[in-house]
Amino acid sequence: MILKENERIDDLQYNGLKLIQDKNAFCFGIDAVLLANFSIVKPNEICLEFGSGNGIVSVLLTEKTKGKFFYGIDIQQNAIELSTKNIELNNLSDKLKFIYSDLKKANELNLNPNVIVTNPPYMRKDSGETNCNEELSIARHEVKCDVEDIIYSASKCLGTKGRFYMIHRSIRITDILYFMRKYKLEAKRVRFVHSFVGKESNMVLIEAIKDAKYDCIVEKPLILYESDNMHTEEVLKMYGRL
Amino acid sequence: MILKENERIDDLQYNGLKLIQDKNAFCFGIDAVLLANFSIVKPNEICLEFGSGNGIVSVLLTEKTKGKFFYGIDIQQNAIELSTKNIELNNLSDKLKFIYSDLKKANELNLNPNVIVTNPPYMRKDSGETNCNEELSIARHEVKCDVEDIIYSASKCLGTKGRFYMIHRSIRITDILYFMRKYKLEAKRVRFVHSFVGKESNMVLIEAIKDAKYDCIVEKPLILYESDNMHTEEVLKMYGRL
Repeated sequence: MILKENERIDDLQYNGLKLIQDKNAFCFGIDAVLLANFSIVKPNEICLEFGSGNGIVSVLLTEKTKGKFFYGIDIQQNAIELSTKNIELNNLSDKLKFIYSDLKKANELNLNPNVIVTNPPYMRKDSGETNCNEELSIARHEVKCDVEDIIYSASKCLGTKGRFYMIHRSIRITDILYFMRKYKLEAKRVRFVHSFVGKESNMVLIEAIKDAKYDCIVEKPLILYESDNMHTEEVLKMYGRL
Repeated sequence: MILKENERIDDLQYNGLKLIQDKNAFCFGIDAVLLANFSIVKPNEICLEFGSGNGIVSVLLTEKTKGKFFYGIDIQQNAIELSTKNIELNNLSDKLKFIYSDLKKANELNLNPNVIVTNPPYMRKDSGETNCNEELSIARHEVKCDVEDIIYSASKCLGTKGRFYMIHRSIRITDILYFMRKYKLEAKRVRFVHSFVGKESNMVLIEAIKDAKYDCIVEKPLILYESDNMHTEEVLKMYGRL
């Protein structure tokens, strides 16, 4: 395998998985690890990732679950090329495929997923610092799609009882729950992520189920750090270091 | 003051406040104390409580804030009689009044509140055990009004920048945020309440502002207990015991 000058291979420290990342594009953070640990893919299910980027979430899910097949779609051709290299690097071509596609048209692909997962752009189109780098902008800001597009498209792709998993910024919680209710993806399990137990939440993990009854469990808070440089036991376990 | 056979006086252990409660009706719990501590009433503001019951929340707010005047409304005549005794008991008639009224018609009272607070019935009309006692049923179940009625009515009563404070069951979080967005009361501050740090949340405190911009802070979790019979320092402070 030939790496480009801007690419590097990282050891995921999880069952020997490795990941090529583009140093100039969006590199994965703890969000991807949290999402992969929160998401449930049952044996023989088909999982689809919206906005798969370098492929980290789907690569982790192939290892952490017993799903039958995993698809990822991304609107950036560079991301598809990179993530496809990651299939090869981890010998996952029998159960993982990345497709160059707009998530707003995902239902036209007829993949019939049981589960959709996504770690979408967090920021409103015109909020926060803008990135001169267009690839980074698309990954971080709602340039090509916003949270309503994502939820609407997920709802169209899923059948009744289909499951949708998302990580997002906590400040967007009303947007998320409002559009989920609107498009019949009912939030059933929500977990807020806090850096420390005494700090406000910056991220939220959500499980929604298509056409489900109302009422939602707000799980125990997910605390990332015990002290300044020390992750909590729960997070260390996710990283496979305990 | 003459107490009925079913009434008792409790010491609120806060600045000498006392409260008459009806042993057969809804007696206050920690919810009322949490709501009174979460709510902000600024100097000279007018505060209106929806579903004031025995009056506990408004009585606490008269003492904890510098609001100019406090109104409570309730659809149960017995509750109004009881809460009015609590005004007398605490010498609060110069700044607190309870009115027998349906909260769905609250805007017709023209009270012009800056702030509305409420600790409403938590349970869906047909969910959970039903109470043979009608007074208890109305206090606990959405018999006379549901969460949409409450949010819609609050929105009608408040002007731009008016504030709305509610405590509710966490499982209703989508209902709450959905109807708040629908009726232009934007949730700006949300705090989930957990019995213990490792347990799911059972209650949630919400501050919403009329016509506000989107985005909401999810505050640090409010933990009630350190260990089995020991409240956290934060809760002990609310009860004035630290």
